[in-house]
Order: sequence, then structure tokens, then C-alpha cells
Amino acid sequence: MPLSLEEITRAVGGRLTADGKTQIAGVASFASAAASDIVFAEDGDSLQSALRSLAGAVITAEPASPAAANKPLVVTSQPRLAFARVARLLHEPRRQSAGVHSTAVVHRSAKIGKHVSMGPNVVLGEDCVLGENTRIGPGSCISNGVTIGSDCFIDNNVTIYSRTRLGNRVAVHAGAVLGSAGFGYVRDEQTGGYEPFPQIGRLEIGDDVEIGANTTIDRGALDATIIGRGVKIDNLVHIGHNVVIGENVVIAALTGISGSSTIEKDTVCGGQVGIGDHVRVEEGAILGAQCGVPSKKVIRGKGVVFWGTPARPIQDYLKELAVLAGMAKKS
Amino acid sequence: MPLSLEEITRAVGGRLTADGKTQIAGVASFASAAASDIVFAEDGDSLQSALRSLAGAVITAEPASPAAANKPLVVTSQPRLAFARVARLLHEPRRQSAGVHSTAVVHRSAKIGKHVSMGPNVVLGEDCVLGENTRIGPGSCISNGVTIGSDCFIDNNVTIYSRTRLGNRVAVHAGAVLGSAGFGYVRDEQTGGYEPFPQIGRLEIGDDVEIGANTTIDRGALDATIIGRGVKIDNLVHIGHNVVIGENVVIAALTGISGSSTIEKDTVCGGQVGIGDHVRVEEGAILGAQCGVPSKKVIRGKGVVFWGTPARPIQDYLKELAVLAGMAKKS
Amino acid sequence: MPLSLEEITRAVGGRLTADGKTQIAGVASFASAAASDIVFAEDGDSLQSALRSLAGAVITAEPASPAAANKPLVVTSQPRLAFARVARLLHEPRRQSAGVHSTAVVHRSAKIGKHVSMGPNVVLGEDCVLGENTRIGPGSCISNGVTIGSDCFIDNNVTIYSRTRLGNRVAVHAGAVLGSAGFGYVRDEQTGGYEPFPQIGRLEIGDDVEIGANTTIDRGALDATIIGRGVKIDNLVHIGHNVVIGENVVIAALTGISGSSTIEKDTVCGGQVGIGDHVRVEEGAILGAQCGVPSKKVIRGKGVVFWGTPARPIQDYLKELAVLAGMAKKS
Repeated sequence: MPLSLEEITRAVGGRLTADGKTQIAGVASFASAAASDIVFAEDGDSLQSALRSLAGAVITAEPASPAAANKPLVVTSQPRLAFARVARLLHEPRRQSAGVHSTAVVHRSAKIGKHVSMGPNVVLGEDCVLGENTRIGPGSCISNGVTIGSDCFIDNNVTIYSRTRLGNRVAVHAGAVLGSAGFGYVRDEQTGGYEPFPQIGRLEIGDDVEIGANTTIDRGALDATIIGRGVKIDNLVHIGHNVVIGENVVIAALTGISGSSTIEKDTVCGGQVGIGDHVRVEEGAILGAQCGVPSKKVIRGKGVVFWGTPARPIQDYLKELAVLAGMAKKS
Repeated sequence: MPLSLEEITRAVGGRLTADGKTQIAGVASFASAAASDIVFAEDGDSLQSALRSLAGAVITAEPASPAAANKPLVVTSQPRLAFARVARLLHEPRRQSAGVHSTAVVHRSAKIGKHVSMGPNVVLGEDCVLGENTRIGPGSCISNGVTIGSDCFIDNNVTIYSRTRLGNRVAVHAGAVLGSAGFGYVRDEQTGGYEPFPQIGRLEIGDDVEIGANTTIDRGALDATIIGRGVKIDNLVHIGHNVVIGENVVIAALTGISGSSTIEKDTVCGGQVGIGDHVRVEEGAILGAQCGVPSKKVIRGKGVVFWGTPARPIQDYLKELAVLAGMAKKS
Repeated sequence: MPLSLEEITRAVGGRLTADGKTQIAGVASFASAAASDIVFAEDGDSLQSALRSLAGAVITAEPASPAAANKPLVVTSQPRLAFARVARLLHEPRRQSAGVHSTAVVHRSAKIGKHVSMGPNVVLGEDCVLGENTRIGPGSCISNGVTIGSDCFIDNNVTIYSRTRLGNRVAVHAGAVLGSAGFGYVRDEQTGGYEPFPQIGRLEIGDDVEIGANTTIDRGALDATIIGRGVKIDNLVHIGHNVVIGENVVIAALTGISGSSTIEKDTVCGGQVGIGDHVRVEEGAILGAQCGVPSKKVIRGKGVVFWGTPARPIQDYLKELAVLAGMAKKS
């Protein structure tokens, strides 16, 4: 549904440099934009590119020379954020229609909110609770005693184990596995065989969490694995039992977090980061891609970037690399 | 089903320091234990914590000062192992009831043992064999000619390819893929295009193996990929074609093992370990997290920890790190 | 269906050293070959092993001393390639029979080519197009507006998101997720919360692509993620939004490629390689296992092997390792 530039400007709280009647139908990149699209620019260079594109309007920070603009500008302090919000207004995802598909297998004890949708072949176990507007994609299997809040989107072929709890507005992408048994064994010193340590805890996921495709999160061994509010997890991430992740942590693809580690709020993990067991990553640290934190270590430093294995402040790591390269060249 | 301390002590072969009539309903952590729970302690410090908890009893090694204990103690040489066994007695997982769900698609040629359970939307191909008490979770697809032993638990949305064989008491967690085509191509020197090398082998999995969520194990190219008895594999692990894994090997999450490598018995692989093709890791080596073993290398050393890429004994790696850090500091 | 040596030799364009009437039923390894099998040898040593095996014939390069051969030889310039082609002739995979299983949920608007097969519990959304001979395995979910070419094989429990396009002869192994939402957020500087950047693009996959089990490929944010013709992707690989991969690129297991990176044609990525965002890997580079390319870097060098994090030419990396090991030994 198209919106006028005036409506868009009002929605994002900006200032419009031109007439507000122009209708905008979509967001786009510079390369693909048409006259009915809006684009965004974060600096002078990208504003020049935006103005050269075919877009009908540009969301931008306060420009150095507004007079030069040949297109309507929506001026705002956070243009990328405004662009994201406009995209949500203009590109409402097409939703499964509400209702339960005839092939879904839903236990009669389930408590299902208004406007819930379940696709073909969904399996919903005993005593599950689904909040309003929550959608479950085809082929997803939700075991007994799972509670899912409202406005959640559980995608296709997802598995959620017993007693897992999800907050509101949680998005779980295809193939993710939530609440699986943790990886814990006890070796019998006499036989050499491994026996399973109990994995009878649960998994609790806060509001506004997003979980990537084919990611796996284990339930706690005796207590809970906890994913805090606003956490964003990419594809193919592994999170072990008893892990506690604070609010607004971001975790990129193929990262692994071993059992009983704590990742405090506002931490960022790059791709393929490895975190040993019983680690504590303190608030706001930034773990560079592929770095490794050994078991039981503490990583401390708000806004500090860490790199390497074992992870150390990036300037130390870069200096070591430079020293080593220099010596190799001389030898 | 609760058990008395006397029954528990008898089951784990320990010595009880108090009256055996107390009923125990569950195992728990120190933090969550109630009076009906039993906890465990492996050393003096954790025994103090255990005694301060609300637990009704403690499984422990021989304490330094037994007189000080204010709770019944079950004294045993391997307290963690005893705790794990007690957990299995008290927390029998709630099983799918036996029987085949009406939505399961089961080929009439399948041979199905007693008390087998198949959940909704299970697909079972031609000429499959399922042993007694084996359970298949919802959405799992088992292709033609697969043989699964008794007391296995195949979880939700698992895929098992044709002719794969599983032993007894194998647990396969959600989303795992067993017996997929290996990654092998031949480049045509004339066209530059890749053509598939035949992947017509099979996958054989021994007794008491556990396979994590979304893990993938390829079948052999011409012969078999073999996973030995008692092997424990975490989530999101990749095991390539023709790999042979010995008994009681433990492999943590996100590890990748390339084609035609051999991992001998009692080896431990940390998380995100990478093993090239045609590698041999000899008995009892310990590969630290994220280490990398290049193609065709041999890793030798029972109980030796290896680290880094290329993997080397950890004391060498740590010394190199220390020397390098020292030089960077001076420069 | 067995073939005579004469037919085999004609099919691969080689020269036969013996009578062509012998019937060959299969390909095999040296260890498992029977008299009805053919094996291959690429050099003198492996030819000796081949001749000692029980195989009935050997595909080989021009041997140094053909007279010594006690078996019929099919002599050809690319013996491994010829072996792969013979395997395809002799081991035609057993196909699902054509037709749509009664439990498949197929939208009436779908356009389905001749001889298409859909297994149990397949879900096919609105306005999908499937080319001739394409097969969809049990439990796979294909969303609205997906186009799949002819002779494709989509395996079990695969998820394909809306508007994804696949070429011809594409193979997608079990559990793969194609076209999922990319991992892109905008942080609101005022609240500290992350909001989703639009992920409204699409995924386009060329002809002859192969995609491994449980691999995930995200759709573009505003435009397209593109996988070129002939690309081969192993299991558990992550490919982010807006990535462009050129023809005949090979990517081994557990590799992650971050958003907006370009991997030019004929590149090879070893296992667990990590590629940051906005990277360009130029034509024909070889990224060794576990190496890491930081964001925005360019990797250049046809046929050059790179290793380490940050990735550098392997001879530099090896020299650095040698220098460091030498210093550690002296210290």
C-alpha cells in the first residue's frame, strides 16, 4: 500500500524538503530504484549516488548542501533506521491467512489465541499455548508444554522441544531447533564409556528475539538456557546448555557458544566465533570473526574489539601480526 | 516415580550415611534444589555448597569431614556418574506412546518391532527395519532400506538416507541428516565444469551413538562412512564421506571432518575443530577448540592436547604465543 | 544395468587394451571390487593396487608398461572423470516414481511439468513453477512464487522461501534452507534496540548447482543473492544476503560468507573458511581451510593458496609459522 511522502515523513519523524503529495510504493537500492521508490543515504557520497538514481525520494541525514538536491529529501537524524521503518510500512510481509490447516495435528489441550495461523503438517503437542497473531509455518513440530507469545513467527520445518518458552514478537527461521538436549556426558572410569548427564532443564527466549535458519539452542541441563530480550542470532549458530545471553546481543553465523557461558548485554559476536564453556563475556564487548575464547575466561571491555585465538584486544593482535610478518620478511 | 535413599544408594553402589527412608523425587542444581531433590558434589568446596542448598541429600565422594554433614550423603567413588544414573531413574523421559500415528506414511514392506512409535507425518520407505521400542519423532523421513536397531530415538524432522544402518540405543536429535551424498567432484579439464564423483556408499552407525541437532553425516563414496560404538556428536557437526570414527570419540559442535579421515578411539574434538581429508588422528588425542589439522597429517599422542592451525602440542602453541606477545610488547 | 567394456570405452572416449565383451555391473573401490566391477587408477602406484584387486577392469591413464597388465584397461586422459561418468551410467539412482503423493499439499495455481514427482507431505505454495522431471522429497516446503527448473532434485525436509528461482539440474540436499531472511539490523541510537533492515530481495540459483545438507542461503536485502552456474556447496555452509558467487566456485563445509561479498568464478573455499562482508575474492583464488578474510578486503591471485586469519599467501603464512616456532624453541 503506497504512502505519500508526507505520511512517510510523519511516520519517521523527519523534515521534508519538498511537496508531500508524491506517492511512494516501495524501498529499493540505488541500482534497482524506480520513480515510485524511496532510497536512503548516510553520507555525502551516498547522497550523490542516491540523487543520480531513478528513485523518487531520498531519506538522508542533514545534507551539506541541500540546495543541490534534485529530489525530495526526508531529512532525519538516523536515515538507515528511518528507511528500515518505512520498509516495514510499505512492504508488509504477505501473511499466511489465519486458521489451522486441515493437515495440522493439534492436540485438543492446546490453548490457541486469536488470529493464530498454522500451516500444513504442523504438529502441536499437549498443553501448548500460542498467543494472538502467532504464525507457525508448514512442517514445524512443537512438543508438549511449549508456550509461545503473541505476534511470533515460527517458520517452516522448525522443531521446538518440550517446555520451551518464547516471548512476544519472536521470529524463528526455517530449520531452527530450540530446546534440544545439551551435550553433556560422564565418563565411567571403569568402562571408558560415556553416559548422559541429565538434560532436564528448559529454554527461555525473551521478547523480540530473532533466530536464524538451522540454528540450534540447547535447553539447560538442570536449570534454564536463557536468551534475553532483543537478541539477534544468525543462521547455523550453536548455543549450548545453561548459556545465558543478555539483552540486545548480536551473534553472527556459525558461532558456537559452549555450555554454561554468559554473554552480557550489548555484546556483538562476529561470524564463526568460538566461546568455551563457563566463559563470561562482559557487557558491550565486540568479538571479531573467528576469534576464540577459552573455557572459564572473562572478556572485559565495553566497545573493545577482540580478535584471535585466544581472543585479545585487536590492537595487540594486529601488532603481533605486524611484528611476525616483519621478522619473516627479514629471515 | 520417587525412590528412597536406600534404593538410590543400592542402584549406584554407594554407602549411605543416614537413614534410607527419605524419598527423593528428582535431581537438581544447588540453586533450584528442593527438599525432595538430590544434588551432587565432586570436591570439598562443592560439598559445602551442596550442604547449604535446600536439597534433601547429596551424592558425594568420600568427604574430608563427614561428621559436619547436615544432610544424608550417598558416598561413591564417581559422584557425577552416580548422579547421572540417578537422574535416569527418576526422570524417565516422557515417551511418545507406542503405535504409528495415522498420518505416518509407512511402506507395507517395512519390518517393525514391538512397541515401536512413529509420530505424525513420519515417512518410512521400502524395506526398512525398526527394532523394538524404537521411536521416530514427527516429520522424520526415512528412506528405503534403512535399518534401525532397538531402543533408538530418532527425533523430529530428521532425514535418514537409503541403506543407512543404525545400531541399538542410538539417539538422533532434531534436524540431523544421516547418509547424505558426499562432496566429491571431478573437474573436466576441458570444460572447467565439475562432475559428481559417485557417492554410492553407505553410512553405518554403531550402538549407543548420540548425534546432535542439525548435524550432517555423509555416506561413503564407494564404501562406508563408519561411526563407532559410543561416539557422541554435538550439534551442527559435519562428517564427510568415508570417514571412520572409533569407539567413544567425543566431537563438539561445529566441528568439520573432511572425507576419508580416520579418528581413532577415545579421541576428543573440541568445538569448531577442522580436520582435513585423509587425516589420521590416533587413539586418545585431544584436539582443542578451533584447531585445524591439514590434509593427510597424522596426529599422535594419547592424552596430548593439540591447538592452533596447523594443530601442534598445546605447550608449543602457548610458548609461541608468549614469545610473540613479548616481542610485540618490546617493539 | 550392466554394460560391456566396449560400451564403456565408447562412452568415455578411451582406448581398450583387451576384448570388449566382458560385462561390468558397477564401479567400486580397490578394497570392495568384485570381478563384475571396474576401478580406476591415476598413477603407477594406484594402477598396481588396481591390478592386485579383484576388479574385472581398470580405467587408467596411459600406463608406463601396459604389457604387465593382467586385466583389461580402459586408457583415457582423465581416468577419474571417466570413472565418474561410468558410475553415472551403471548406478542410475533409484528415483521416486513420478506423480504427486496423496499427502502433498499443492496449491491449485502451481504449474507442474511432466514427470514431476512430489513425495509425502510436500507443501507447494501459490504460483510455483516446477520443470520437467523435477523431484521434491518428503517433507519439503516450497513457498509462494518459487520457480524450479527441470531435472532438479530437492531432497527431504528442504525449505525454499518465496520467489526463489532455481535453474535446471540443481540438487538440494536434505534440510537446506534457501532464500531465508538475511541478518541485517539497524540499531536505534536512542533505545539501543535493533530493528530489522528490510530483507525483501530474492535468491537466484543457476543451472547445475549442488547445495549440501542443512546449508542456508539468505535472500538479498533489497536486490538478489546470486549463486552462479555450476557452483558446488557442501553441508552446513552459510551464505549471507546480497552475496554473488561466480561460476564453478567450490565451497566446503561450515564455511560462512557474510553479506554483500563477491566470490568470483573458479574460486575454491576450504572448510570453515570465514569471509567478512563486502569482500571480493577474485577469480580462481584458493582459500585454505579455516582462513578468514576481513570485511571489505580484496583477495587476488589465480591459483594462489591463501591461509590464516587474516588470509595471506600460504608461503607467507608458513614462513611466519616457521620463524615463530624457531624463536619459541630458542627462548
